[in-house]
Amino acid sequence: MSTFSNQAEYHTYLQELGPLPRGFRGATSALSFMPSERPSQEPYKMDVSAIVLDNPTDSFAGVFTRNAVPGAPVLIGRAMLDHPTTQGVLINNRISNVAAKGGVDTAARLCARAAELFGATQESLFPSSTGIIGWTLPEADMMAALPDLASKLDSREETPLQLARAIMTTDSFPKIRVKNLAGGRIMAIAKGAGMIEPNMATMLSFIMTDLDIPRDFLRTLLRETVETSFNAISVDSDQSTSDMVLAFSSKQFPVELDDFAESFRELCNELSLDIVRNGEGTGHVMEISVCGHDDRTFLRALGKAVGNSPLVKTAVYGNDPNVGRILSAVGDCAGNLGVDIRKEKLNIRIGEQTVFHDGVFDIDKEKELILSDYLSENSQNARIHGYPQNDHLVRIAIDLGEGSGCQRIYASDLGHEYVSENADYRS
Amino acid sequence: MSTFSNQAEYHTYLQELGPLPRGFRGATSALSFMPSERPSQEPYKMDVSAIVLDNPTDSFAGVFTRNAVPGAPVLIGRAMLDHPTTQGVLINNRISNVAAKGGVDTAARLCARAAELFGATQESLFPSSTGIIGWTLPEADMMAALPDLASKLDSREETPLQLARAIMTTDSFPKIRVKNLAGGRIMAIAKGAGMIEPNMATMLSFIMTDLDIPRDFLRTLLRETVETSFNAISVDSDQSTSDMVLAFSSKQFPVELDDFAESFRELCNELSLDIVRNGEGTGHVMEISVCGHDDRTFLRALGKAVGNSPLVKTAVYGNDPNVGRILSAVGDCAGNLGVDIRKEKLNIRIGEQTVFHDGVFDIDKEKELILSDYLSENSQNARIHGYPQNDHLVRIAIDLGEGSGCQRIYASDLGHEYVSENADYRS
Repeated sequence: MSTFSNQAEYHTYLQELGPLPRGFRGATSALSFMPSERPSQEPYKMDVSAIVLDNPTDSFAGVFTRNAVPGAPVLIGRAMLDHPTTQGVLINNRISNVAAKGGVDTAARLCARAAELFGATQESLFPSSTGIIGWTLPEADMMAALPDLASKLDSREETPLQLARAIMTTDSFPKIRVKNLAGGRIMAIAKGAGMIEPNMATMLSFIMTDLDIPRDFLRTLLRETVETSFNAISVDSDQSTSDMVLAFSSKQFPVELDDFAESFRELCNELSLDIVRNGEGTGHVMEISVCGHDDRTFLRALGKAVGNSPLVKTAVYGNDPNVGRILSAVGDCAGNLGVDIRKEKLNIRIGEQTVFHDGVFDIDKEKELILSDYLSENSQNARIHGYPQNDHLVRIAIDLGEGSGCQRIYASDLGHEYVSENADYRS
Repeated sequence: MSTFSNQAEYHTYLQELGPLPRGFRGATSALSFMPSERPSQEPYKMDVSAIVLDNPTDSFAGVFTRNAVPGAPVLIGRAMLDHPTTQGVLINNRISNVAAKGGVDTAARLCARAAELFGATQESLFPSSTGIIGWTLPEADMMAALPDLASKLDSREETPLQLARAIMTTDSFPKIRVKNLAGGRIMAIAKGAGMIEPNMATMLSFIMTDLDIPRDFLRTLLRETVETSFNAISVDSDQSTSDMVLAFSSKQFPVELDDFAESFRELCNELSLDIVRNGEGTGHVMEISVCGHDDRTFLRALGKAVGNSPLVKTAVYGNDPNVGRILSAVGDCAGNLGVDIRKEKLNIRIGEQTVFHDGVFDIDKEKELILSDYLSENSQNARIHGYPQNDHLVRIAIDLGEGSGCQRIYASDLGHEYVSENADYRS
């Protein structure tokens, strides 16, 4: 996994990304608007962006939130999976277009007009929105921004980095990953911070490749990969109404499908860790591995229960190795799901230290100091984390000792910065 | 429900509680100890308390946490439910005696010695512990405190208020409720703050009555009442390893069982709201009612999903009527449970304002201001909430429009005080 040891290194990486994969254009345009739902002195800012394929492709895939009240883009996107071809996506931040009056029609009108201006075929663009739930899109302002977007697409001057920046909301750094193979590449950008959990809560990711991947292969691969990457992270416990991961192939270069799948998985794992790393107010990232049971769904639930526990999160935030809260979260989850776990077989480690085995805790004063230091050393400086410090992880390993399965979850801690960012996200 | 309009009123209530119900004695004793698990300059303080019946009773009931890794007191307590009689409970705070080496034996030895000193029959005392998970009880220090406890029990000078204070950990006020009926009374004390959710997470409550209740009736009533009171509250989403509610009858006065049941339910509801009110750093208490579906388990899950959502909690903390987060939490829960909900039938109200109906949000600038004011007015001053301000509630009403069931959940918000209290609870 690519790691960066400081902000400058990450900036160099971002500057040297190269262009979008062959056959893709991207552009972004800024606008401002006055919301109709909230008194405001200042206009709100919005970025409208597009990723467009030069030619329609039949090789595209999408995975959407399982939230039972999804937004208009999810409703439209699900139906579009049955289309024979697509030509890209129209994206906005700031307002997520969920359960707003006439929201589906607004999204359809915007995409239709955009397709016309971009020279794409009719009904070929996915809509994608992130931001405040319940507000209506400023349709007129967005329509007015489309010609600018079209001319920027034509100029082909915008960089992947500009695109990644344009979909940010409360993100603290742009998230973009690339894999080069077989003469082509896979590139993906993502937005996500706050409201991150499975099923990709308020997470948008757009994966582009110029490698020639068959439609069915891409769809199966995306579905399986999302489960162990984007759906295995937790910043808070909510999944949003608007999450989606879309993948497109422009089918320019032949590639071994196994090689492609490996790079694809790596890229999704890196990007999902970037997302946790960048959670609102994240001070530590926990890598929680849960092993020793044959039911992987249960293992993932257990990992998420630990990663979602406000008590575990706040303890880690405070560099307090409160091992009891980990056990409590494990027992809480197993008890609720009615799964028997045998305390005598349970093993819990933090970093290199075993803190629970043979049915009892194994902690003492010296271990406490070692663990406190471990947590301090693996905190990230939340104020200046302008890059993903992927080498800094708080590793928590839970082994149930009953089977051979393993699942890994990435989760953020919970501190004052989280509260500050979320107590009034809309202002 | 008894409400109090200021701290002085609550103090008067506490001063005028009267004695424990007939046939009960209570006492508490303080000690200090050096923990063996953590470096510390200062000794830690602990309160050891006892509630003892003058005579053994066959009428007692207990409900325990469903956490799959319960503490020693829960393991012992569950087995004790089969005993023909009991004579009370030995309680300590500070350390919860969970998965500590030899913890079950330690608890048994302490209870045996206490029974001997208190003049109770052998194996007649429940153990009950709350506090840090994983540490070992300071057995020698606790043994040394038992004679003092015995003499205080004999003197009968200690008040219910002293008992309620002694079981506090991070609680900001003592919790005690009383109902007078049929010449006797029901009195209950509770401990709980932080780690509060179903199944009574880190919550202890001891219910005493001198009314003559048959054993089976008391057990059924306690089990049913806990579901809709202590198990319908949420401060954070964890349930602890140590929660228990015990009820004892000294069988002194005859009573109509229906009257008793009504008062018993009222008392448990009041006490469970006191517990939320007193959650660590609670700034608002939400009363979330979820109606319109025939599956009450689903309704309760939905209410808890809203009440547990960190995004809803932080928005309410910030007096930000972020109605979209409520919808998102509802959809998240329903989607995860695979329950279809019809957006068109859904209705969401906050206070007197309907914010969602007919499938779309109904919000505008004026409503936004009204709701912001509503949240501000119903905040409690977290710094000085030395009493339960039960008239201050943020009322969120969700109607699914599909059936006739209703469930009510009480939940706290999530703010800086919560983080501060939980980032290092053990220091």
